[in-house]
Amino acid sequence: MSPVQTCRESFLIGCIELSTDGQGGDSQHDLPISYFPIAERLNCSESLQKLFVELETTLCFVPKVIRAFAWREARFWKWWAHRNDLMTESEGLSKAEREMVALVVSAANDCLYCMTSHGYAVRLLLGDPVTGERITLDYRRAGLDGRTLAMLDYAVKITKRPAECSLEDVEHLRKHGFRDEDIWDIAEIAAMYNYTNRLASATGMLPNPEYHGLVR
Amino acid sequence: MSPVQTCRESFLIGCIELSTDGQGGDSQHDLPISYFPIAERLNCSESLQKLFVELETTLCFVPKVIRAFAWREARFWKWWAHRNDLMTESEGLSKAEREMVALVVSAANDCLYCMTSHGYAVRLLLGDPVTGERITLDYRRAGLDGRTLAMLDYAVKITKRPAECSLEDVEHLRKHGFRDEDIWDIAEIAAMYNYTNRLASATGMLPNPEYHGLVR
Amino acid sequence: MSPVQTCRESFLIGCIELSTDGQGGDSQHDLPISYFPIAERLNCSESLQKLFVELETTLCFVPKVIRAFAWREARFWKWWAHRNDLMTESEGLSKAEREMVALVVSAANDCLYCMTSHGYAVRLLLGDPVTGERITLDYRRAGLDGRTLAMLDYAVKITKRPAECSLEDVEHLRKHGFRDEDIWDIAEIAAMYNYTNRLASATGMLPNPEYHGLVR
Amino acid sequence: MSPVQTCRESFLIGCIELSTDGQGGDSQHDLPISYFPIAERLNCSESLQKLFVELETTLCFVPKVIRAFAWREARFWKWWAHRNDLMTESEGLSKAEREMVALVVSAANDCLYCMTSHGYAVRLLLGDPVTGERITLDYRRAGLDGRTLAMLDYAVKITKRPAECSLEDVEHLRKHGFRDEDIWDIAEIAAMYNYTNRLASATGMLPNPEYHGLVR
Amino acid sequence: MSPVQTCRESFLIGCIELSTDGQGGDSQHDLPISYFPIAERLNCSESLQKLFVELETTLCFVPKVIRAFAWREARFWKWWAHRNDLMTESEGLSKAEREMVALVVSAANDCLYCMTSHGYAVRLLLGDPVTGERITLDYRRAGLDGRTLAMLDYAVKITKRPAECSLEDVEHLRKHGFRDEDIWDIAEIAAMYNYTNRLASATGMLPNPEYHGLVR
Amino acid sequence: MSPVQTCRESFLIGCIELSTDGQGGDSQHDLPISYFPIAERLNCSESLQKLFVELETTLCFVPKVIRAFAWREARFWKWWAHRNDLMTESEGLSKAEREMVALVVSAANDCLYCMTSHGYAVRLLLGDPVTGERITLDYRRAGLDGRTLAMLDYAVKITKRPAECSLEDVEHLRKHGFRDEDIWDIAEIAAMYNYTNRLASATGMLPNPEYHGLVR
Repeated sequence: MSPVQTCRESFLIGCIELSTDGQGGDSQHDLPISYFPIAERLNCSESLQKLFVELETTLCFVPKVIRAFAWREARFWKWWAHRNDLMTESEGLSKAEREMVALVVSAANDCLYCMTSHGYAVRLLLGDPVTGERITLDYRRAGLDGRTLAMLDYAVKITKRPAECSLEDVEHLRKHGFRDEDIWDIAEIAAMYNYTNRLASATGMLPNPEYHGLVR
Repeated sequence: MSPVQTCRESFLIGCIELSTDGQGGDSQHDLPISYFPIAERLNCSESLQKLFVELETTLCFVPKVIRAFAWREARFWKWWAHRNDLMTESEGLSKAEREMVALVVSAANDCLYCMTSHGYAVRLLLGDPVTGERITLDYRRAGLDGRTLAMLDYAVKITKRPAECSLEDVEHLRKHGFRDEDIWDIAEIAAMYNYTNRLASATGMLPNPEYHGLVR
Repeated sequence: MSPVQTCRESFLIGCIELSTDGQGGDSQHDLPISYFPIAERLNCSESLQKLFVELETTLCFVPKVIRAFAWREARFWKWWAHRNDLMTESEGLSKAEREMVALVVSAANDCLYCMTSHGYAVRLLLGDPVTGERITLDYRRAGLDGRTLAMLDYAVKITKRPAECSLEDVEHLRKHGFRDEDIWDIAEIAAMYNYTNRLASATGMLPNPEYHGLVR
Repeated sequence: MSPVQTCRESFLIGCIELSTDGQGGDSQHDLPISYFPIAERLNCSESLQKLFVELETTLCFVPKVIRAFAWREARFWKWWAHRNDLMTESEGLSKAEREMVALVVSAANDCLYCMTSHGYAVRLLLGDPVTGERITLDYRRAGLDGRTLAMLDYAVKITKRPAECSLEDVEHLRKHGFRDEDIWDIAEIAAMYNYTNRLASATGMLPNPEYHGLVR
Repeated sequence: MSPVQTCRESFLIGCIELSTDGQGGDSQHDLPISYFPIAERLNCSESLQKLFVELETTLCFVPKVIRAFAWREARFWKWWAHRNDLMTESEGLSKAEREMVALVVSAANDCLYCMTSHGYAVRLLLGDPVTGERITLDYRRAGLDGRTLAMLDYAVKITKRPAECSLEDVEHLRKHGFRDEDIWDIAEIAAMYNYTNRLASATGMLPNPEYHGLVR
Repeated sequence: MSPVQTCRESFLIGCIELSTDGQGGDSQHDLPISYFPIAERLNCSESLQKLFVELETTLCFVPKVIRAFAWREARFWKWWAHRNDLMTESEGLSKAEREMVALVVSAANDCLYCMTSHGYAVRLLLGDPVTGERITLDYRRAGLDGRTLAMLDYAVKITKRPAECSLEDVEHLRKHGFRDEDIWDIAEIAAMYNYTNRLASATGMLPNPEYHGLVR
């Protein structure tokens, strides 16, 4: 693994910007990151500027989703608050587990942005780049334990066949030791990334190129 | 149309409770409204109690989604804020148009709760129960104009084939006169109901029986 | 429920025409009811005229399927005879059960005309508008008993995956107490509405607007 | 081609029985032809007996669909009348064209019985066993002309995606020279075999073994 | 059955050419057999010429796949060697079983060429034209025993849902008495015809017309 | 990019083993690499031993597909010869283009092994880890030029809807400047990885853990 993983992991959308001359430094992949206007760094609200600085301090760069979303700033902050609440670890569901749910949902929806950013997050949080990438590509063959598989199968069912979800699914997770709060959280995280995946795909968001090389 | 539609439409998840003895009055359809715990009326926070009263005043009843969601109250308020922002009409996109997007997405996801509640909302806002129900069942045969069809086709594409969305889709809507803000809103509303539909279906939410009879 | 349901239910395609000035009285939804020629009221055979009068007496209006189909009159009567035979209640399968099968098949085929007309019929025959609409939208969440669910699951399997049907399906229904005659009827009704749904969708039939408001 | 094709083709469900000792003579494939009771030859109505004799005279054998369906005799005759009307050639649509529509619909529904019986009928009516079998297996690669392909594409669309059918489809066929009566017939034949295929598959009908060898 | 089946079956792609005047003798179906150049009989390598003579001796004609593939001769021989190895019978898996796997895979991929040539092979090797054609059209209704069905279900799963294959599938076949070598062969034959089907379909290969009439 | 990419790229299934103590050195991911027996290093044929040494010299490790396949050694060599021929660059189609075709086919089939090994190969050959991973996850959003997209769209169509491939597809690629030899190669490579993907998925092959970290 590269030294990248020593980076503080306090904020888990993102990762580490390797160049900092303000132009991104990745001219090779300098594709537009949205079909819509982008939040300008110098021209944005104080709150956004503060978030940008914060992310650069903890993550070393600003995830592109933020610049692509923040032209609708009031809306952005509401999503941001909800999403951060959902991804906060609880007694019953760790941060890594929450990110794994986000990742398999994103893979089921073929969302390039979210597979990339949450793939990074899972590699980092598991401290295991191999398993992290395998979950991105096919979680059923990643060597996961039965409890984790049950959780991820449920997230994928919610994504692909929501109308078929039933009380039996909930009871199946209870048998694996998940509490009601945990099961609800799995369902709500799965639901949330069905929102995020679609917003990212429909608006043409592209992930920071740096994600791809981190925690390998 | 029944007198129901004279009800104030200020809050558009909901509708009108026809009985008010506190027990719901609909013993025939008294099925559990969630696989999870329900927010108790008497035992909940002051903010929730205030919302309950507000909804009963404007809508005459409390939509079941609120009672089913509010056992995770902090989470609920964050979704509620985001959702209300998204459903507020703008210069370019009316409340009825926003509800139509929510409705066709819910139909594409076969979500009983949301087809029921947003079917009601569309009937009410269009002032046209026939067209409203036809949008619920097959919007392509509801006699809608080309601009509205383009909007709804886009919402369904985002729902069913998000990874195939491209800049061409955005440009197609621009040609129909939608501004960037409107197109983003269509995409974000579509995304949001992919969240809501899945949360409702996975947690077993059932809609208030009263919805079915209103604005017919 | 409205007084509409006091209407005699002797003929269950249809419902009740609320205006009778001969022009349909529903100018708001005056869309063409077929891509093909329409049987003219004044210019048609005596048998058709007799049927029109009969339906107006019992149902108060003439279902549009009849006017849209009857330009091929000889063909129409043959279908009509077969369909009426199939929808007649037997000892083992009530009229409401037959209509429920027609309805879930129509929903599985996304047929606007047939979801509308058979949705009405189920609401009327069950005497339960809420359950009737829930069967239209998602019969798995409509609170039905296990025997009825088994019947409807079979009808949907015949519709969506006919080649996978097997002797096991028949035996499963036998265990629920259905006799051979009943199981055949379920299968044949399911098959028949796969005919009707496709003819209605391919020829562009639109249902009478009055259906939408009845038995709510 | 075998001498079989000299057989009178007046009734085109069927074909020619090669053995006539009353036991079928095909012990190798003596599988049950239905999951339901079978109409007994000696014990059935006079009308059925007359039909059996008629078919044996013109076709040399009784298609199994008749024995499998006729235990519900009243129902059988209604279908029979409708089906025979539909398959009668008109000025605009030949018997071979009607059988080709039946065949591609049956293939789209993976119906063993109907692919077998209508595959035979198409081989016979085209006088071309090679093209007949290619239509059974993949009509797009059978060397058909554009008009016939347009007709068959429409039949398959009605079968697989009925709700997407629109006025444009009808107009497309008009451009190929089909009259309204012809287009309706294509649609109704397609619809009819969606009925027949499902009844045959759900009830476990197996075709007469003799079909497979005829007109090769 | 025709005298055709007396033909030596040593080489099982092919069958018997009924005319030998060098022009194919089937002018009625003289469609191009590929979208690409065809190996010329007189102008090709000595090895190919030798293969042509060999096939005409044993099979009475040269399967069109060979002429369509052999313009890339080096590539052709490598596939040929691999394919012949795979289709050679072993102690645990007969030639007929190998051909049945090839056939159901080809049917699952809707490959006209391969359904035709392997349909012939299965009819020939089973000595049963009826069962052979039923396997082509719907192997689940062909009256096969449980062991054979398990083998064919596995081949279809590998074809349609490869990522879902698991150790349980392998163990299920072991229970039916298949050895590891046999199960691998089933999997590899299924995989191979996913190659062959796609090459044939993408390059527009059409089968020899003679196949259709043989072993009927 | 890591120094890994200085490794000789002569043989492109594989990559570089980072530990060489003979035990693999990756105890964390020491999952079984096949549901079947594995070729033993010390106990295998001289030809295999020679290949192992060759791969370790050029790639630094032996791709697991070789050990998992080589227990059927005769079969292995035939596939190996064919595959190597197919992946050799020609005037019209570079090695990187061939690997991109293999990669998008593997992604369309959700094959963990092949996405991993060909993802590595594409990253290496393009000298661009970011674009390489984006092609693995969603090639439509990887910033590729129109000619490359046309090639990859064709490979995916061959994979997902082979029966729908037609002469128009071939002509479309001709317009992009591909010669007949190139188009055939694209089709045959696509077909080949439909074989490889299915064999790998059905037999439970797991890729070398080292792949995941290389050329990042």
